[in-house]
Amino acid sequence: MLAHRLIERKRDGGKLDSGEWRALVMAYAAGHVPDYQMSAFLMACFIRGLDRAETAALTDAMLNSGVRFDLASLNKPRLDKHSIGGVGDKVSLVLAPLVSSLGVAVPMVSGRGLGHTGGTLDKLESIPGFRTDLSMADARRQLEAIGCALMGQTSEVVPADRKMYALRDATATVEAIPLIASSIMSKKLAEDLTGLVIDIKRGSGAFLTSFDREIALANEMIHLGDMHGCPVVALCTAMDRPLGRACGNALEVEEAIAALKGEGPDDLMEVTLALSAEMLLMAGVVSDRETALAALREAITSGRAADQFRRIIESQGGNPDVLDDPALLPQAVECELYTAPRSGIVQRVEPRAIGRGIISLGGGRSTMTDTIDPSVGFVITAKPGDWVDAGEPLASVYARDRPGIERGRSVLRGAVIIGDEAEPPLPLVSHRVTKAGVEELSRA
Amino acid sequence: MLAHRLIERKRDGGKLDSGEWRALVMAYAAGHVPDYQMSAFLMACFIRGLDRAETAALTDAMLNSGVRFDLASLNKPRLDKHSIGGVGDKVSLVLAPLVSSLGVAVPMVSGRGLGHTGGTLDKLESIPGFRTDLSMADARRQLEAIGCALMGQTSEVVPADRKMYALRDATATVEAIPLIASSIMSKKLAEDLTGLVIDIKRGSGAFLTSFDREIALANEMIHLGDMHGCPVVALCTAMDRPLGRACGNALEVEEAIAALKGEGPDDLMEVTLALSAEMLLMAGVVSDRETALAALREAITSGRAADQFRRIIESQGGNPDVLDDPALLPQAVECELYTAPRSGIVQRVEPRAIGRGIISLGGGRSTMTDTIDPSVGFVITAKPGDWVDAGEPLASVYARDRPGIERGRSVLRGAVIIGDEAEPPLPLVSHRVTKAGVEELSRA
Repeated sequence: MLAHRLIERKRDGGKLDSGEWRALVMAYAAGHVPDYQMSAFLMACFIRGLDRAETAALTDAMLNSGVRFDLASLNKPRLDKHSIGGVGDKVSLVLAPLVSSLGVAVPMVSGRGLGHTGGTLDKLESIPGFRTDLSMADARRQLEAIGCALMGQTSEVVPADRKMYALRDATATVEAIPLIASSIMSKKLAEDLTGLVIDIKRGSGAFLTSFDREIALANEMIHLGDMHGCPVVALCTAMDRPLGRACGNALEVEEAIAALKGEGPDDLMEVTLALSAEMLLMAGVVSDRETALAALREAITSGRAADQFRRIIESQGGNPDVLDDPALLPQAVECELYTAPRSGIVQRVEPRAIGRGIISLGGGRSTMTDTIDPSVGFVITAKPGDWVDAGEPLASVYARDRPGIERGRSVLRGAVIIGDEAEPPLPLVSHRVTKAGVEELSRA
Repeated sequence: MLAHRLIERKRDGGKLDSGEWRALVMAYAAGHVPDYQMSAFLMACFIRGLDRAETAALTDAMLNSGVRFDLASLNKPRLDKHSIGGVGDKVSLVLAPLVSSLGVAVPMVSGRGLGHTGGTLDKLESIPGFRTDLSMADARRQLEAIGCALMGQTSEVVPADRKMYALRDATATVEAIPLIASSIMSKKLAEDLTGLVIDIKRGSGAFLTSFDREIALANEMIHLGDMHGCPVVALCTAMDRPLGRACGNALEVEEAIAALKGEGPDDLMEVTLALSAEMLLMAGVVSDRETALAALREAITSGRAADQFRRIIESQGGNPDVLDDPALLPQAVECELYTAPRSGIVQRVEPRAIGRGIISLGGGRSTMTDTIDPSVGFVITAKPGDWVDAGEPLASVYARDRPGIERGRSVLRGAVIIGDEAEPPLPLVSHRVTKAGVEELSRA
């Protein structure tokens, strides 16, 4: 009867106290509250909202539903980065080796792709042999040995969130700020971090399409971190177009490897370096942003960052030779150029259309049980603001077969908009949000 | 993906068209949409509401999820009565034999008790041998033979509603007017009625505690009936105290039998006759209310109504001798009088407290799978407005054991409120609601 009473109260706009949140989350994790009651409750939460105290209580309840890392004995700052979705967002693949090559531990628990956004685990698993299903003990040993572990959410870590997220995904209750914030922060706080950087995406391809809501989400996470002694800084970055050029699992790994060797696209490098610099600053290993950026650039040019990725891949069972020979990654059967249907200015490259296009090629998931083809996707070289001539190559489609190529071409026709006047894109890194407030970094 | 899209739309306050309602209800009935999606959807419906067209579409979708009676060949008017909950409400047990003894077919599909209100099926099943699980073919044969069948909702009739109601009950999504109206009307329309009378309960023991909401519910059902050529009339009756004296399954059957023999309590008779008269009028077998009431009284005094109940019991496998010897009904092990703790005026007899008290004695259900003890309950002779002396008997408790008697006494102490000044009770039959509007019959 507990669940029924709490559903009823939230349905009518009431609040649960922290004991009630704990009891409900524990009962759900233990299977004593059925999915159908929890989904009705979550819908009531979605529509009626949670206040800050309730969001904190939910986060604590989820955090306490499982085992947490205790990494104090590493004697190192422990930082992670979390991104709120995005298309072409391979920042984690570059940032984790890069930052962990500079004396900072990065215990990164990532997710799988769902909907139009990709997932770091899926990308990593396109590396032959790479295992993301590390146990907490495996992850701990690897953090001690090389300072970085790239793992999925195990059944030990925040099991209540794992179960609840799958339910929310199936019941259209994902995009509520308190539910997003508590889901992310319960996982991140379980990593025993000394600091967290969040990449809040702005624009049509972002998870939340209103900027105010993104700032609200950032503030909620900053508050939750603060309550647990984990400082949180958020950067708002552009997701009105894909980040970098490659969109698709193996294609993005290839681009990430290029970036670790100093050959990444400018936009990917700018976002990666900005987020990485925040991590070094929070870790206290550098004293200012300029020194941080210089250290990061040196780690790339010296090969230290690429070597660190090699070590991570090797430690997680993958073939480290992909660093030198990206052709070892899964290769699409068919590949074809897509050329400009007319001359003009590229006004937009719609990230949602591209993200959905990857799913239509078999490279993403509509449901959690779909299997994916890591080889397919797009490499889009045209950027908003570029002048293009009719017939000029704008992108490549990678597909399993000829119908896939045709689907991919049709996706690109809809996603790459060419017109007569430029539409100004969002600045790549626009705002920095901390406990102290929102700072505007650059204006569109 | 259909369900997800429709949940999302209703979550955001949008509408479904009739094709979407049909598709969703059929998919749910067929098991293609899981409970956890439907419960999230129903919570969104509860909070966001349904407009009249959506309520009609949902009703049609449920109606079409199963088999419907086709009773035209009976060549008789076919009427039913539906009551929105209530405590001590044994009207159906009196009304069905009474009205069907006067040339009107009564194909009555009833429900079980849940929460503080009792259910006609549970009451009937306290008659030794009585079977309520009639198939549609059984019911049809019995309607042809004797003009009345008292049955439960089979798996053939409106299976979508059956499944959805159980889900709503578990997820705090019962009390939404469009969902109540479509649930009731889909079942009633499946009975192929030529008219329907609804008993809308008013007061603290009613299902909906605001009078405006009850009128809204009545109007919704009148509208749904009208769209399907089934005229609906609603009477608003008092549920600020239990109806009659007996509250509990077998005890209510005993009181119903007394009523059919002309020995029922005044309030029970008044409500039963008012509803029955509406049925005779809608059936067209009498031309005015006075004639209807006279015919009903004659059916009782002549023994015709009691004989009809005997036939129904016999036809459904029960022991018809209960009509002459109510001691054949299940008898409680313990029985004890409850006397007035002080002198004064009975201000209130709280029906919800009594209803919950029956559950605490084992005579009602908290969940659909609870089994019930038909013998327990209360017979409350004191009515609001009565002057009572300290020590005077007000009620009897019927229980399985001594602790039950103690629980029952404690229930009565909380439910029967004695004070110094009378609190005027609601008029027994206060309003008549038809397509033409709301008519006030008597004022408190």
